[in-house]
Amino acid sequence: MTLNEIQGGVCAARGFSANGIHCGIRKNKVKRDLALILAKVPCNTACVYTTNLVKGAPILVTREHVKDGIAQAVIVNSGNANTCNANGVEIAEEMCVLAARYTGVKAEDVVVASTGVIGQTLSIDPIAAGMQELSEGLSSSAEGSSAAAEAIMTTDLVRKEIAYSFMIGDTECRIGAIAKGVGMICPNMATMLMFITTDCAISAPMLQKAISEDVKDSMNMLSVDRDTSTNDTLCIMASGLAGNAPIEEEGGSFEIFQAALHAVTMAMCKKLAADGEGATHLIECRVHGAKSKRDARLAAKSVVNSNLVKAMIFGADANGGRVMCALGYSGADLDPQAIDVDFISAAGTLPAYRQGSAVAFSEEFAKRVLTEKEIVIDVRLNGGAEEATAWGCDLTYDYVKINGDYRT
Amino acid sequence: MTLNEIQGGVCAARGFSANGIHCGIRKNKVKRDLALILAKVPCNTACVYTTNLVKGAPILVTREHVKDGIAQAVIVNSGNANTCNANGVEIAEEMCVLAARYTGVKAEDVVVASTGVIGQTLSIDPIAAGMQELSEGLSSSAEGSSAAAEAIMTTDLVRKEIAYSFMIGDTECRIGAIAKGVGMICPNMATMLMFITTDCAISAPMLQKAISEDVKDSMNMLSVDRDTSTNDTLCIMASGLAGNAPIEEEGGSFEIFQAALHAVTMAMCKKLAADGEGATHLIECRVHGAKSKRDARLAAKSVVNSNLVKAMIFGADANGGRVMCALGYSGADLDPQAIDVDFISAAGTLPAYRQGSAVAFSEEFAKRVLTEKEIVIDVRLNGGAEEATAWGCDLTYDYVKINGDYRT
Repeated sequence: MTLNEIQGGVCAARGFSANGIHCGIRKNKVKRDLALILAKVPCNTACVYTTNLVKGAPILVTREHVKDGIAQAVIVNSGNANTCNANGVEIAEEMCVLAARYTGVKAEDVVVASTGVIGQTLSIDPIAAGMQELSEGLSSSAEGSSAAAEAIMTTDLVRKEIAYSFMIGDTECRIGAIAKGVGMICPNMATMLMFITTDCAISAPMLQKAISEDVKDSMNMLSVDRDTSTNDTLCIMASGLAGNAPIEEEGGSFEIFQAALHAVTMAMCKKLAADGEGATHLIECRVHGAKSKRDARLAAKSVVNSNLVKAMIFGADANGGRVMCALGYSGADLDPQAIDVDFISAAGTLPAYRQGSAVAFSEEFAKRVLTEKEIVIDVRLNGGAEEATAWGCDLTYDYVKINGDYRT
Repeated sequence: MTLNEIQGGVCAARGFSANGIHCGIRKNKVKRDLALILAKVPCNTACVYTTNLVKGAPILVTREHVKDGIAQAVIVNSGNANTCNANGVEIAEEMCVLAARYTGVKAEDVVVASTGVIGQTLSIDPIAAGMQELSEGLSSSAEGSSAAAEAIMTTDLVRKEIAYSFMIGDTECRIGAIAKGVGMICPNMATMLMFITTDCAISAPMLQKAISEDVKDSMNMLSVDRDTSTNDTLCIMASGLAGNAPIEEEGGSFEIFQAALHAVTMAMCKKLAADGEGATHLIECRVHGAKSKRDARLAAKSVVNSNLVKAMIFGADANGGRVMCALGYSGADLDPQAIDVDFISAAGTLPAYRQGSAVAFSEEFAKRVLTEKEIVIDVRLNGGAEEATAWGCDLTYDYVKINGDYRT
C-alpha cells in the first residue's frame, strides 16, 4: 500500500471544513480557544474515550450523541476541561445546541470536547459570543485545519496536524487529523484530544472496530507521565465522499484503511510525545521477541513510563540498568538473563546490555548517541516473536516547573 | 499498648552490635560504604524482597541463606548494587564468607545486601581490605547503629534509625531498625534497604507472618517514583534475648508485637518519603470510606504516585482536580460523585472537593496550607468503611537533576 503525506490536516478529506478563534475562555492569553469542525454530510463516526472513572462532562454528552454512529460537527474549547463542575453536562449540551444553531446540523449530531483546568465552572457566554465569527470563518483549506488545531492547544508548543492519501482500488481516499496534548496522559491542561476525518466510505461499526483496535498500538502506547486524563477523546468521522465502494466488512479494503489510520495515529503519537510538557527528547521503546503481544506492550510501556529512564535521557546518561529495572517490574513474562538492550539515535547504535548483563562502552560515544533529539531504546527479550513500540519523552526541569504552578 | 521511642536504632534490642566504615567502594566520595550487623546468638529471621523480576545477586544469595529461618549477621555495601553483573552471585557469596570469617558465624547465616549503580562489576578487594576494621569496630552502642545506618546511604540526605520499647506481659522487649532509600522504589542508587532487630522471642514462621502482613500497609504503600528497585530487601532478626515467653502463635502477644513492628515500619516510611530524592515535602494520602481494603490502597497509592499531584505539591498549588484525576484512574471501585477531598497541614484544613465537585477557597489560605513541609491529602470516598494511607514526596527540579546524571 502506498501512503502519500499531504497537506490540510482535518480538512484534507473531502467534505470537511474547520476553524478556530479566540473567544475569551482564557482570560490571561490571547490564544485561539474555540474550534469547530463541520462535515457537509452526516458522517459515520466512532469514538474512544478515557478509561478514567472521573470523566469530563463533554464525554458524557458526546457518548450519547454518537450512540447512533452518526455525527456531523465537532465543537471543542481549550482553557477549561468542564470536568468536576456541578453544571458540566448542561454547559456541554449548550455548546452542542450553539454549534447546531450556527451550522444547521442537529444538536444530537454534534461531538463536544473540552480541555484545560479541572474544577472551574465553564461559562457559556464567551462561547455564545464567538459562535458567529467561528462559523462564518469555516474553511476547507489547510488554514481552516490549522486554526482549529491551534484552538485546541493548551501547554502544547507545537500545532499537531497530519494527513495522508491512499488508494482503495482505483479510488483515492484521504485521511487527516488534528490533535493536542502532552500525552494521552495528563490531567488539567493536558488532555489528549484527537479528531480524525476521512472521506473513505466505511460503515460506523467497521470504523469503531478500526479505531478500537488501533489505539491499542497507538494512543495507548503513548505516555508523558502516566496520568490518564479525565477528558481524553479520540473521534473519527468518515464522510464517504471519496466514492470508494463502502467498507462494510473485513478484507483487503479494510486492511488498507487500517494501515492508513495507523499511519495517522503513529505520526500523532510521535508528535504528541515529542511535545510532551517540558520535553527535550522523544523516546521510542521498541520491544522485540516477547512471548505475547501483551508482554511486549507491558514491557515497552514500562520503559517509557519510568521516571528514572526519562530523567536519564534528559541527562544523556547511558544507564541501561534503569531500562533493565523497568523491564523487570513491568509485569511482562520475561527472562532477565536473556535481555539485550541498545540505545539507538541518528549518531549510531550503543549496545548497553547483552543477556542481562551490562557491557562496556565508550562514554564519549554514549553521550553522542544520547544527546540526539530522538532516542530509540531497542529491547530484545529473546523469548518469543511478538513486538510492540511505545512513545514517551524525557523528564525535565520544565515539566516540574509547568506543573508546579499550573492554575495561575 | 504503650510504645516508648528509645535510642539505639538497630543496636537497641539486646544482643545486637553494628558498625559502618568507608572501605573505598565509592571512589569519588569519602563516605561510609560498608556495614555489618552482628547478633550474639543465631536469630529467627524473616525477609521480604522486591517483586522486580530483575533481582540483585545479593537477594538470590540471601534467599538461600534464610531459607531455614535463621541468620546471625548482615553485611551490606552501598555504591554498587551488584545487579546485572555476570559474577554477581559469586561476589555476594564472597561477602558472606568474609563476614563469617571475621565474626565467627556460619556463612549460611549471613544476610547480604547491596545498593548503588546497576550493571557495574563490584570488586571484592575493598570489602576484603575493610573487614578487619569493620568487625573490630562492632559496637552495641547507639554509635554502632548510626555508623551502619550511614554506611548504607546513597543519595539519602538523612540517616534513618528508629527504636521502640514495649511490654509483653511483664517483659520489656525492644525493636529497632535502620533503613535507606529514597523510596522503596527507585533503581540504581535508591534501593530500599531496611534491617530490623528485636530481642522479642518469636518463632521464624510468626516473624515471617508479621512482616509479610505488615509491608502491605507500610513499605508497599510508600512511593517516591513508582520505580520498583531490583534490590529492595527488608530483613528482621529476633534474638529472643528479652526473655518473654516465645511467640509461636496468634494471640495477644503476637498482636502487641505486630503493633510495635508497625510503629517501626510506619516511622521509617515517613522518614524515607520525606527524604525522597530532591523532596521538599512529605505527602501522606489518607483514604477513608472505601468499599474494600484493596480499593483504599489502590486509591491512596495512585494519589501519591501521580507526577502531577507531586509537582502540584512542590508548587504549593491547590489543584484538587489532580487528586480527583488520580483517584479516577487508580483502578479502585469508587463513585466520582461521592468524593470529598481536603488538604491538611499544620496551617489548617482546606476543603477542596465536595461530592466530586470543586469548592471555592481562598488562594491565600491554600498557599499557607500547602507551603508546610508535611501535607496530608485526606480523601473520603463515602462508599464503605475501609481505609488506607500511602506516603510519597513532591517532584522537584532536584529529582530531575539527581537522576539526569546519576552515574557520574
